[in-house]
Amino acid sequence: MIAVINGPNLNLLGKREPDIYGSLTLDQINESLKTQFPDTDLTFYQSNHEGSLIDYIQQTGFDPNTKGIVFNPGAYSHYSIALRDCIAAIPVPVIEVHISNIHAREDFRHTSVTAAAALAVIAGLGPQGYAAAIRALLNNTSTPC
Amino acid sequence: MIAVINGPNLNLLGKREPDIYGSLTLDQINESLKTQFPDTDLTFYQSNHEGSLIDYIQQTGFDPNTKGIVFNPGAYSHYSIALRDCIAAIPVPVIEVHISNIHAREDFRHTSVTAAAALAVIAGLGPQGYAAAIRALLNNTSTPC
Amino acid sequence: MIAVINGPNLNLLGKREPDIYGSLTLDQINESLKTQFPDTDLTFYQSNHEGSLIDYIQQTGFDPNTKGIVFNPGAYSHYSIALRDCIAAIPVPVIEVHISNIHAREDFRHTSVTAAAALAVIAGLGPQGYAAAIRALLNNTSTPC
Amino acid sequence: MIAVINGPNLNLLGKREPDIYGSLTLDQINESLKTQFPDTDLTFYQSNHEGSLIDYIQQTGFDPNTKGIVFNPGAYSHYSIALRDCIAAIPVPVIEVHISNIHAREDFRHTSVTAAAALAVIAGLGPQGYAAAIRALLNNTSTPC
Amino acid sequence: MIAVINGPNLNLLGKREPDIYGSLTLDQINESLKTQFPDTDLTFYQSNHEGSLIDYIQQTGFDPNTKGIVFNPGAYSHYSIALRDCIAAIPVPVIEVHISNIHAREDFRHTSVTAAAALAVIAGLGPQGYAAAIRALLNNTSTPC
Amino acid sequence: MIAVINGPNLNLLGKREPDIYGSLTLDQINESLKTQFPDTDLTFYQSNHEGSLIDYIQQTGFDPNTKGIVFNPGAYSHYSIALRDCIAAIPVPVIEVHISNIHAREDFRHTSVTAAAALAVIAGLGPQGYAAAIRALLNNTSTPC
Amino acid sequence: MIAVINGPNLNLLGKREPDIYGSLTLDQINESLKTQFPDTDLTFYQSNHEGSLIDYIQQTGFDPNTKGIVFNPGAYSHYSIALRDCIAAIPVPVIEVHISNIHAREDFRHTSVTAAAALAVIAGLGPQGYAAAIRALLNNTSTPC
Amino acid sequence: MIAVINGPNLNLLGKREPDIYGSLTLDQINESLKTQFPDTDLTFYQSNHEGSLIDYIQQTGFDPNTKGIVFNPGAYSHYSIALRDCIAAIPVPVIEVHISNIHAREDFRHTSVTAAAALAVIAGLGPQGYAAAIRALLNNTSTPC
Amino acid sequence: MIAVINGPNLNLLGKREPDIYGSLTLDQINESLKTQFPDTDLTFYQSNHEGSLIDYIQQTGFDPNTKGIVFNPGAYSHYSIALRDCIAAIPVPVIEVHISNIHAREDFRHTSVTAAAALAVIAGLGPQGYAAAIRALLNNTSTPC
Amino acid sequence: MIAVINGPNLNLLGKREPDIYGSLTLDQINESLKTQFPDTDLTFYQSNHEGSLIDYIQQTGFDPNTKGIVFNPGAYSHYSIALRDCIAAIPVPVIEVHISNIHAREDFRHTSVTAAAALAVIAGLGPQGYAAAIRALLNNTSTPC
Amino acid sequence: MIAVINGPNLNLLGKREPDIYGSLTLDQINESLKTQFPDTDLTFYQSNHEGSLIDYIQQTGFDPNTKGIVFNPGAYSHYSIALRDCIAAIPVPVIEVHISNIHAREDFRHTSVTAAAALAVIAGLGPQGYAAAIRALLNNTSTPC
Amino acid sequence: MIAVINGPNLNLLGKREPDIYGSLTLDQINESLKTQFPDTDLTFYQSNHEGSLIDYIQQTGFDPNTKGIVFNPGAYSHYSIALRDCIAAIPVPVIEVHISNIHAREDFRHTSVTAAAALAVIAGLGPQGYAAAIRALLNNTSTPC
Repeated sequence: MIAVINGPNLNLLGKREPDIYGSLTLDQINESLKTQFPDTDLTFYQSNHEGSLIDYIQQTGFDPNTKGIVFNPGAYSHYSIALRDCIAAIPVPVIEVHISNIHAREDFRHTSVTAAAALAVIAGLGPQGYAAAIRALLNNTSTPC
Repeated sequence: MIAVINGPNLNLLGKREPDIYGSLTLDQINESLKTQFPDTDLTFYQSNHEGSLIDYIQQTGFDPNTKGIVFNPGAYSHYSIALRDCIAAIPVPVIEVHISNIHAREDFRHTSVTAAAALAVIAGLGPQGYAAAIRALLNNTSTPC
Repeated sequence: MIAVINGPNLNLLGKREPDIYGSLTLDQINESLKTQFPDTDLTFYQSNHEGSLIDYIQQTGFDPNTKGIVFNPGAYSHYSIALRDCIAAIPVPVIEVHISNIHAREDFRHTSVTAAAALAVIAGLGPQGYAAAIRALLNNTSTPC
Repeated sequence: MIAVINGPNLNLLGKREPDIYGSLTLDQINESLKTQFPDTDLTFYQSNHEGSLIDYIQQTGFDPNTKGIVFNPGAYSHYSIALRDCIAAIPVPVIEVHISNIHAREDFRHTSVTAAAALAVIAGLGPQGYAAAIRALLNNTSTPC
Repeated sequence: MIAVINGPNLNLLGKREPDIYGSLTLDQINESLKTQFPDTDLTFYQSNHEGSLIDYIQQTGFDPNTKGIVFNPGAYSHYSIALRDCIAAIPVPVIEVHISNIHAREDFRHTSVTAAAALAVIAGLGPQGYAAAIRALLNNTSTPC
Repeated sequence: MIAVINGPNLNLLGKREPDIYGSLTLDQINESLKTQFPDTDLTFYQSNHEGSLIDYIQQTGFDPNTKGIVFNPGAYSHYSIALRDCIAAIPVPVIEVHISNIHAREDFRHTSVTAAAALAVIAGLGPQGYAAAIRALLNNTSTPC
Repeated sequence: MIAVINGPNLNLLGKREPDIYGSLTLDQINESLKTQFPDTDLTFYQSNHEGSLIDYIQQTGFDPNTKGIVFNPGAYSHYSIALRDCIAAIPVPVIEVHISNIHAREDFRHTSVTAAAALAVIAGLGPQGYAAAIRALLNNTSTPC
Repeated sequence: MIAVINGPNLNLLGKREPDIYGSLTLDQINESLKTQFPDTDLTFYQSNHEGSLIDYIQQTGFDPNTKGIVFNPGAYSHYSIALRDCIAAIPVPVIEVHISNIHAREDFRHTSVTAAAALAVIAGLGPQGYAAAIRALLNNTSTPC
Repeated sequence: MIAVINGPNLNLLGKREPDIYGSLTLDQINESLKTQFPDTDLTFYQSNHEGSLIDYIQQTGFDPNTKGIVFNPGAYSHYSIALRDCIAAIPVPVIEVHISNIHAREDFRHTSVTAAAALAVIAGLGPQGYAAAIRALLNNTSTPC
Repeated sequence: MIAVINGPNLNLLGKREPDIYGSLTLDQINESLKTQFPDTDLTFYQSNHEGSLIDYIQQTGFDPNTKGIVFNPGAYSHYSIALRDCIAAIPVPVIEVHISNIHAREDFRHTSVTAAAALAVIAGLGPQGYAAAIRALLNNTSTPC
Repeated sequence: MIAVINGPNLNLLGKREPDIYGSLTLDQINESLKTQFPDTDLTFYQSNHEGSLIDYIQQTGFDPNTKGIVFNPGAYSHYSIALRDCIAAIPVPVIEVHISNIHAREDFRHTSVTAAAALAVIAGLGPQGYAAAIRALLNNTSTPC
Repeated sequence: MIAVINGPNLNLLGKREPDIYGSLTLDQINESLKTQFPDTDLTFYQSNHEGSLIDYIQQTGFDPNTKGIVFNPGAYSHYSIALRDCIAAIPVPVIEVHISNIHAREDFRHTSVTAAAALAVIAGLGPQGYAAAIRALLNNTSTPC
């Protein structure tokens, strides 16, 4: 199982500044991921609550069935040391995804405190970033390139 | 055509700190990419010279046959405003790739001045990052997810 | 409808450091606002949870009946980029209110990350700040002065 | 008496970047304030000179007839410690007003050295901010909400 | 009654990086505390939610039966101004406990925004820190040394 | 043997700002510690000299009879890298004690360069902090909680 | 008409540190400019008063006869946001001139807050900088090179 | 002749925060100085205008009768590079005086940009600072101690 | 002889962001300079290589026929201490030129490390800046204004 | 009694950089002070040891015969928080003296951590600064000006 | 073999600021080194090109005949993370040499990013630094002192 | 005579973290130096006291028999401005030695305040650094390379 977890305000995808975040809703993105990975057991979760994200990451992160986590921490990326600790605590690999290129936006979005605990970071690929992250987690146990 | 460009010290892949950068050489990675994308015209370039990288990116970046550039700027990522200007100047999309997760290393590797000019950034996927970037460039003109 | 939203620890108004925050409780303030704006549909909400505030602002912020939001983010004002993103995402105007003059307190209270996404900020007017904000939202569609 | 004092470049209101500052001139704003507060003795002053503003605030600030001062320090807000000291020295309450939301503009406009000495700050309400400040000063001696 | 409150990720004690946090689970620690202080009414609470911690601290902090609070804010220690305000608002004394010596870890763990509102801080004593804090709260009303 | 070492100005305890440091003298505190730990061999040392503190910590820190050191570095805590190196050099565990809660005082007291080399830090418990530190050192070899 | 405006202490040219500022007086420089541009209507103004400079720049900056302004803000360059706002408010182009190379002097002279609002900056050419600026303003409407 | 020059808000001495600035008015201080130095030609000047202070210091600073200047720049001390340049430009020695100990007040009062251009600085002696400065200027040409 | 040297990405002039850099190519600018200064021996050089620029500046800078160098370091201006050292090492005067007003762009373009070693800096005059610099170098040996 | 205390390297006065510190030895300065204040009981002390200075200031600072302390902390001024605490702890007033104008020297000499605890600071008057400080301490109990 | 590598502008030794860098040319220094170490195979290389230095260090750094590298990175020392990575990547020890004492020059020369990857650093010994570095590399395999 | 002076904690060499500092004791190093320089009069001194080091450096630094000083300031290197002033005050040249490469350790060890006053710095050569420094001092009066 691979868990696809989205943080604060990502439930607004499609409604919110479409020039930055695209016009697809989160449901449409998740449906598309299911279609692209028909053989993979994907689980989806979204919350605006820092604590709920920690609870959920802990729960799936210690679940022996979880192969990996794709996590878009949204704005929590820039200040939630609690999420960073949570990612560092679990044995499952986490790939951090950002829809937009955070390096090209406001200064306070240039650093990610959660990224240091993740295995990898993908930013700016739009919704494709989720698929790229899933693919990377699936390849993780196979040949290195 | 998609250009895969590597910056300083990446010619040492395989020899240099294999625990960080993996044990594949750059040639092996490039060969693997050719195998993975048999239908794509891939061009490879590596240089330790900031100026040569600028020359090459300018040349391929204005070449109408270039569909995109996959660029690992190595350490230049952290201070070369000249490369940033170069990426910003060309019409072709550039995806920045880092083999290691730069957010989890020394402080001075947490910020990338070149990333702001790129379309997207992929860091920490190991050599797979190059393939993920090529795939994203190929999808760029097709459906968004 | 105008939503009056209060963030963390503001449920303690009246009990907590009355020399800074005054001796009125939040209920008394809300009652007074209803009295002052008898013709306006006012809704009140308070939570100590960052995620619940985001949920509520999203919900009211996309509700076509909402004319505006008066929001006192309390301490979240100084670090919640997630709330900032939420305010930026909704089409309804938000006026940020602080009971005390945050510029005259500790250094870390001098900057507000949420304020940049709000339409306006009122700080230091005490409980009157809420009324001033409501009045401003009501005038918003009328003459500019 | 309530003094309405405007600092540097505010004599240009109406001519200067109307998308930021609105299209009303300072005279029109002042006339509108007189109309809105027919029973209040309002005095108006504008100067581009830091020293003249200090002179005037001292003079009105120690005048026993002055009930309060509404002050838009313009750009002096961000560096004039002399004006801050002046506001701190007088017994009359001062409310600082900014037409635009200074928190949403350039970084150097996010901090106000004068605000720390003021009673309250209103920013981003446009010309209405002056009226809101006058109203707050008039209520100051009455019920707290 | 003395409340022992633990913040984010501390429910993972025993599973998470045992070289830093020891091999005892939170339940084992709490049991041990009950054994060590048989005559004291101890209450235990853990949450990963910032807002829930605020709710709980407010509730116990204004409860006349509460003699003191032992609080390990975990990572919230480094950025939750809302928790700091909450601790400052209640009349009951709070002692902040960290299992590891936060001064000897990453730079961003060297400062604690919550500690300024606490009565005292104990860091690096491992699970014994909780017992030391309880003992200090019990002594609080007796002789000073 | 456990050494209790006090740094600069702590010989003034009782005379110096009693609202911060309490009214007990250092002799009274030391006497009380002897009474509280009748079975422990306690040695006491105080000096205002950075070099003398280094000499003494080296000497006791390499003495095979020393079980641990309780050290209040006073103001040296904030800048003496030489003391930090000294603590790091010795095999004996050191617990740093501060009588007041240094996190709640001036900014320059929020960081401790010596603390990073210590085993643990106790701040704000008043003179009880010394006893808590001794107790922790004695327990060090026994059960973890 | 082109206005040549000089800020604080530039009335001392010739008397003040001639090794930095040269031995010509301001009158001699102005006379020389008249000789060099016999067909251009040049107006000269100097003041040590920030407010007077703002008044004068506003007045000439909105005068339809003014083709451009050559402005040496002297030390105000480094902190007068009020002058910056004034330059930004007027429709006439402003070229900022510094007699010495400010980049080669004290650190606090390396940044110019006024320069961001000017069209161009010339620093270090000595009194010739004024002539170069006038020439540039005259060419402004003609061929680009 | 020795000029005693006072900057912004110092005309309020006696009325303004007497616990910081004492209860003497500026006139009383000046009278006292005349009494203490009956044989010295003392001139007094006060202005709230940065530009007027520059004008006056230039004028007296190049006057061959001026033996020295005693200057209290008030708040301008902390940001007026124009005054600093002015002091540096004149041949007459300037001693900077502050009535209060600026090092013991807010952070932004700890640095003085004007002090670097002065001969000496006296801060915290109260009104006596002026007399000490005059005495030092008179001794300047005599024996060094 | 006067050398006109251009750094990285300036070979793209005309193609690259014409709203910032104008629509003229570097060849057109150089031709125009030859036309404007028919009696001056002008040499042109452009390179994207930091090392090649150093080589060339050294070579022309020690050539007794070189009267001066006009140098647009492009982005190297902001970090190349090696170029700064090179400019400082040669006896020939260098005038730094920037086509755009670097003070009005991103923060990292506000400081120039090379400018401190140059004689003068001209920024924001567009391609005219080169001509202004040549003119200044030619005048250098003649009358000061 | 008034104690005149000098810190590190001040025993070298006369031998050490006479252009900064003058040509008088410390003995000559002390003798001159005795001559200038024949009716005052002056005590002199110098040490290069931070700890010895603390010991001596404590001893004289609690001596009921001490009227005041004149203290030149030399370089300790810039980092000795232990000396600052010592000055703050004693009931006797301390005036800090620096022979040179520390504000006009290297950046790290612009701030004084000890000055915040002193009554007043005199810097740049040369050896006369000691006499000025003694005079101020003697006047302390008499009329304010 | 020991490689002696010099970076940018060091080909100017003897011509460039002889008071800082001495009057010997690089050739003279290299000749002197050959004379001093007649039994050692010394190779010399100089380049102003960052990329060429990387190429050369890689080549010699992986050559099994290379015993060590003496490297003066010149100004690249302060910003070339690419050179740092290169030094870190090779198995051969590198000793960094600076002719002048970089700690006693401009602030931006006080930190060396390359030094962290080197074995040792020698700065300020003049041309002797090269000989000292060679001697240290030769001793490296022998007794430690 | 050449004095070899060691600062705080260097008396622990051999016992303290041998992987960083080597396994030789200070006595063994000093003996080895005597053997290596049989014709040179070497004097050895070690102290943990900042003040004693200042006393000793002053005494030997003004002794006409002293040819030079080799000084390892240990941790004082990073904060003792008093030692820096002392080194700057004496006429004898000082070479600063660090056994480890301070640039490759914690951030706070990257800057040396004492180094700016020394003639040269040698770091990372292990105990050999002392011999290299002595050799350099002996050569000082002979040929430059």
